[in-house]
Amino acid sequence: MFNKVLIANRGEIAIRAMRACRELGVKTVAVYSEADKNALFAKYADEAYLLGPAPSSQSYLNMEKILDVAEKTGSEAIHPGYGFLSENHVFASKCEKAGVVFIGPPANVIKKMGSKIEARKTMSKAGVPVVPGTENAISEVDEAAEIAEDIGYPVIIKASAGGGGIGMKIVHSREEFANAIASIQSVAKSAFGDPTVFIEKYLDEPRHIEFQLLADRYGNTVHCNERECSIQRRHQKLIEEAPSPIITEEMRELMGEAAVKGAKSIGYENAGTMEFLYSKGEFYFLEMNTRLQVEHSITELITGLDLAKKQLCIAAGEELAYSQEDIPLWGWAIECRINAEDPLNDFAPSPGKIRRYRSSGGPGVRVDSGVHMGYTISPYYDSMISKLSVWAPTRIEAIHRMDRALYEYVVVGVATNIPFHKAVIRHEQFLKGNLTTHFIEDNSIIKDVERVVKEDSEKGATLASALENKSTMVAAVTAAVESYMHAAKNQSSNTE
Amino acid sequence: MFNKVLIANRGEIAIRAMRACRELGVKTVAVYSEADKNALFAKYADEAYLLGPAPSSQSYLNMEKILDVAEKTGSEAIHPGYGFLSENHVFASKCEKAGVVFIGPPANVIKKMGSKIEARKTMSKAGVPVVPGTENAISEVDEAAEIAEDIGYPVIIKASAGGGGIGMKIVHSREEFANAIASIQSVAKSAFGDPTVFIEKYLDEPRHIEFQLLADRYGNTVHCNERECSIQRRHQKLIEEAPSPIITEEMRELMGEAAVKGAKSIGYENAGTMEFLYSKGEFYFLEMNTRLQVEHSITELITGLDLAKKQLCIAAGEELAYSQEDIPLWGWAIECRINAEDPLNDFAPSPGKIRRYRSSGGPGVRVDSGVHMGYTISPYYDSMISKLSVWAPTRIEAIHRMDRALYEYVVVGVATNIPFHKAVIRHEQFLKGNLTTHFIEDNSIIKDVERVVKEDSEKGATLASALENKSTMVAAVTAAVESYMHAAKNQSSNTE
Repeated sequence: MFNKVLIANRGEIAIRAMRACRELGVKTVAVYSEADKNALFAKYADEAYLLGPAPSSQSYLNMEKILDVAEKTGSEAIHPGYGFLSENHVFASKCEKAGVVFIGPPANVIKKMGSKIEARKTMSKAGVPVVPGTENAISEVDEAAEIAEDIGYPVIIKASAGGGGIGMKIVHSREEFANAIASIQSVAKSAFGDPTVFIEKYLDEPRHIEFQLLADRYGNTVHCNERECSIQRRHQKLIEEAPSPIITEEMRELMGEAAVKGAKSIGYENAGTMEFLYSKGEFYFLEMNTRLQVEHSITELITGLDLAKKQLCIAAGEELAYSQEDIPLWGWAIECRINAEDPLNDFAPSPGKIRRYRSSGGPGVRVDSGVHMGYTISPYYDSMISKLSVWAPTRIEAIHRMDRALYEYVVVGVATNIPFHKAVIRHEQFLKGNLTTHFIEDNSIIKDVERVVKEDSEKGATLASALENKSTMVAAVTAAVESYMHAAKNQSSNTE
Repeated sequence: MFNKVLIANRGEIAIRAMRACRELGVKTVAVYSEADKNALFAKYADEAYLLGPAPSSQSYLNMEKILDVAEKTGSEAIHPGYGFLSENHVFASKCEKAGVVFIGPPANVIKKMGSKIEARKTMSKAGVPVVPGTENAISEVDEAAEIAEDIGYPVIIKASAGGGGIGMKIVHSREEFANAIASIQSVAKSAFGDPTVFIEKYLDEPRHIEFQLLADRYGNTVHCNERECSIQRRHQKLIEEAPSPIITEEMRELMGEAAVKGAKSIGYENAGTMEFLYSKGEFYFLEMNTRLQVEHSITELITGLDLAKKQLCIAAGEELAYSQEDIPLWGWAIECRINAEDPLNDFAPSPGKIRRYRSSGGPGVRVDSGVHMGYTISPYYDSMISKLSVWAPTRIEAIHRMDRALYEYVVVGVATNIPFHKAVIRHEQFLKGNLTTHFIEDNSIIKDVERVVKEDSEKGATLASALENKSTMVAAVTAAVESYMHAAKNQSSNTE
């Protein structure tokens, strides 16, 4: 095992990696930006070094600076967390060249999976199902219509250069086809300056199902069961659960085998996730994430595995001690991402000072956070406050436990999406396990959020409000004093 | 299931019971003393009622008042927690008469197990091994010596009226016997006014092993595996683990069967614990706790069961859905009781205000607490701040996880026994699983605690100190202002 590891990330995921290090007896080195100089993760580490100003290009994406700190501190490996440099094959290469172990797959694997078209082709070749469609751009309408006929309606016409939901049209029949393709080509040309379009099968009621993978350098690859991450807003996952209520044991075996096969075909190593779209009994490769994911904690809850520790062990050359049948699937886990954002104001970020904070606790509750009472959430980075996960023997018990954990989670001072989570998990369709990636819109969840917020603002409806009533005055006094001290300090520095 | 339950307790166990209620959709009623008017558990409940002044006789032991609140609020059942009225058969009877369900075994069972001599006789009759010894008082030295010969040396002579470690003597041979018995009779007479003594086999290197039991009213009784609670100070458990490192699968079956048999013989109902002393491959009934225990959380971690929920379900008449082979034993769990006490000052209680508080978190960590930042620990009740429990697949991983969780647990403002826990779990004999109820003295743990405190006071050795360095000044200012406000308020009330 390594003696010292540098964590090239911030917030809860930096702490997550450091927890794994601590439990393995590995010393930790944090790197932080000026905006994070008071952040908990920097204090959690054995050593901490300033990278530079808040913008990521000058800090968390500054490869040379990070490698410099690694060298000077004698760090033998770098854990990249998620986001930032975690899927940057150039950084992985640089680590290799600098003789520092990059905790993740080899650079060439990261590169291959980083290109969606390349990944789709590779997986298709390996026998992993992909969404049926044209692999290349469409030029002739008649040829395109023939392909659509082959795929079967409905299909979706997508602008190759499209993004953010612009330049897509669902077509249900041959009759609509020519007009639709012309309209998308025209939109694509005006919006992106590129009229190229392609066709994919339109998946009805798609669900996001992904498989956690672990692979060592000796060719041993296992999956650790699936997670369902269909509750999304603009492709941002908000609630995840493991296992998925739609996946039968047979389907788990089928999809798991496909995921393992795909990973083996590219020589995958370390922890990774194969994402699928699932619709009406069929599954299709979506993409592969070549890093630890935010939602890995729910897989840890149902398997008992510590995936961050496994990452370190695999990177240090350890052989996987598991075969597929050794991976447990115990009970049910759900994660809610607690963000500082206002669900009733189009989920606008709500940075600011956390005036009062108390984690949920008790049976089956896990909290991963990088914050504390008095901590100020910076506007520079994502708005995640923490990951609130629960475990229970069954799905319905897990849901009731999450509802209880949301009740008792105290976060005061910033707006949070806690009411949003309550609205979703109490919804009839959620309780039934009827999930799709359109869940939030299809079920008009925001209406429910409004009702929850109203209920919560009533007396005693949340533990936060019960705590808050007693201490609003003290808080006000404290704020007044802090402001006074600040003014006094400014005055004194002005006169110096 | 009940609609509303009154929780006749305080602190973390009140919250524990309320969490179970919330997850089952049951409304909760808290009762509290004047000393607890700002306590979290009172805010956590749906309704809360003042019982009276801090002394327990006027609040948490005031049966009539509690039953009165139950009646007025329409509470259908009372959860007694642990301590206070939880093993009071008179209270259980009063509940029965008042038509309120007492969540626990029937009053006559509580009464029977409440008398140690009665319990010992009952269990012996049921075929549960008890420590060999005289059942009645000894009058003749020669007769006593014969009994000692039968039991086998060493034996322990105990004053019947003894307590607090006074009036006990270990005797290793016939030669010492007559003098020893005379000396104990003399001590017993002068200290307790009663020279009666009795003899028990002296157990060498005793370990405290207990079995969690669940029994419904239809005669179904299962055990939920053992807990080892040998790490004690003056019969106060401090660290517990499940399973026990000494108990083999065969021994678990043997002891588990004895525990179930004993419970069945008295018509036990609801959750309970049979405590044993274990020494050199033999086990002996110690006593039965007819309530939920502090350390129940580690059993929940290795079985996935929610024992507090089970208590409610059983009390509501539900049948146990388990047979013995359905009870899982998954991984390893350890609990450290985090107390506001100073291990370097003879564990003197350290009540006061918690200036800074942040729970441990992340994988495999469970915190049960009734406190929060800014909360003042009252001198009126026990000094427990929280129960810090961890789970991991193996014992050694659980120990390393606990060490990590202790590192990151931030409790500032009162002295805590966190350094004590670190010293114990890092000790070679603890790591080897060589535990006895004399562990703390036999291994001179306090010396190790001194070393840990010294290490922790060094820069960055705990997360608490890292957090504290940045904010000592702000805290000082806040305290000054609070004191000023308090003085101003007093002045204003004096002049009114």
